[in-house]
Amino acid sequence: MSEGISPAIDRLVDDLKRLPGVGKKTAQRMAFYLLERDREGAQRLADSLHHAVERVGHCKQCRTLTEEPLCRICANPARSEQGTLCVVETPADVLAIEQTSQFKGRYFVLMGHLSPLDGIGPEDIGLDELEAQLKSAVIEEIILATNPTVEGDATAHYIADIAESLNVNTSRIAHGVPVGGELGYVDQATLGHAFTGRKKFG
Amino acid sequence: MSEGISPAIDRLVDDLKRLPGVGKKTAQRMAFYLLERDREGAQRLADSLHHAVERVGHCKQCRTLTEEPLCRICANPARSEQGTLCVVETPADVLAIEQTSQFKGRYFVLMGHLSPLDGIGPEDIGLDELEAQLKSAVIEEIILATNPTVEGDATAHYIADIAESLNVNTSRIAHGVPVGGELGYVDQATLGHAFTGRKKFG
Ligand SMILES: [Zn+2]
Ligand SMILES: [Zn+2]
Repeated sequence: MSEGISPAIDRLVDDLKRLPGVGKKTAQRMAFYLLERDREGAQRLADSLHHAVERVGHCKQCRTLTEEPLCRICANPARSEQGTLCVVETPADVLAIEQTSQFKGRYFVLMGHLSPLDGIGPEDIGLDELEAQLKSAVIEEIILATNPTVEGDATAHYIADIAESLNVNTSRIAHGVPVGGELGYVDQATLGHAFTGRKKFG
Repeated sequence: MSEGISPAIDRLVDDLKRLPGVGKKTAQRMAFYLLERDREGAQRLADSLHHAVERVGHCKQCRTLTEEPLCRICANPARSEQGTLCVVETPADVLAIEQTSQFKGRYFVLMGHLSPLDGIGPEDIGLDELEAQLKSAVIEEIILATNPTVEGDATAHYIADIAESLNVNTSRIAHGVPVGGELGYVDQATLGHAFTGRKKFG
């Protein structure tokens, strides 16, 4: 026994370990749970994994994950009529912003960020397609919501240059101390952003 | 968007949420990760789930999960020749004890504990089979390693009565303050066990 339990369970544990945030102990607990108490759930999970991998592709307008030609947001004309386009790195960012209910326009999902060292250039994150949309659609403002990281900032600057050349207004979401956060608990980089992004008061 | 992302992704998120310890946010992160970055891993996980559910049953001797008629421990004659049988509640308990390398005998896995209120009686946790093994095999000692809970203790007492009627020696693993633990950080029940289980010193 020592390491292996049985070949089929070992294989299941190994494949569960590929999930983000799942180590060996957690994977074993998941495998035992499914086999002891929820075999129907295990079958359903297997089926939904197959189904999603087969069906889910990218929205032909915003590039987010969807099994339809257009995602739900792009398929809603009211979202395009707003004339604002929010550029984010991932589909998870879209979800997070949607949950705030603060933004009524549509998105463009880069599915990454510029990373020359990894060979990820403008076309790999759809910037040719983004430029085409800026030329053909009525977009009054691009909101850059890439992450406040070196790569996310570089990507935001690159897109801002494209937008400027096409006379489209550009803004970047504010980064700073979280609402309700205490200065002492905020990391240095965030606090730095809060200072450089300070606004006139009163 | 608000709630749903797309039907196929929503379904995948719902099925991932059935895994122990996985909430909605974690399930979304897992689904996005698999679809954005590891579709091959998703297919493999689906296959290993199907494979395990189809193949894995119970060891015909100790009842643990395995796809063979006998698990690796029961298939090893040296483990039976020890003459000691450790009774545990789950296959995970077997793994935990194996990792200590302190026990060289074989196991009997109840796959639960007595729970009259839930309708779980002696035969549901294999005690008829355990009694038959005590009668037919040379077992010199039963080590009761059920959990130190009300149900685990009651189950241990029930098995001890069977063993006594067959003149088989019985012991219960020690419960107390963890090695290296500080008294102030140990929960009341453990500290209570440590007192009632105290041994003569010096
Ligand atoms: Zn879309
Ligand atoms: Zn066995």
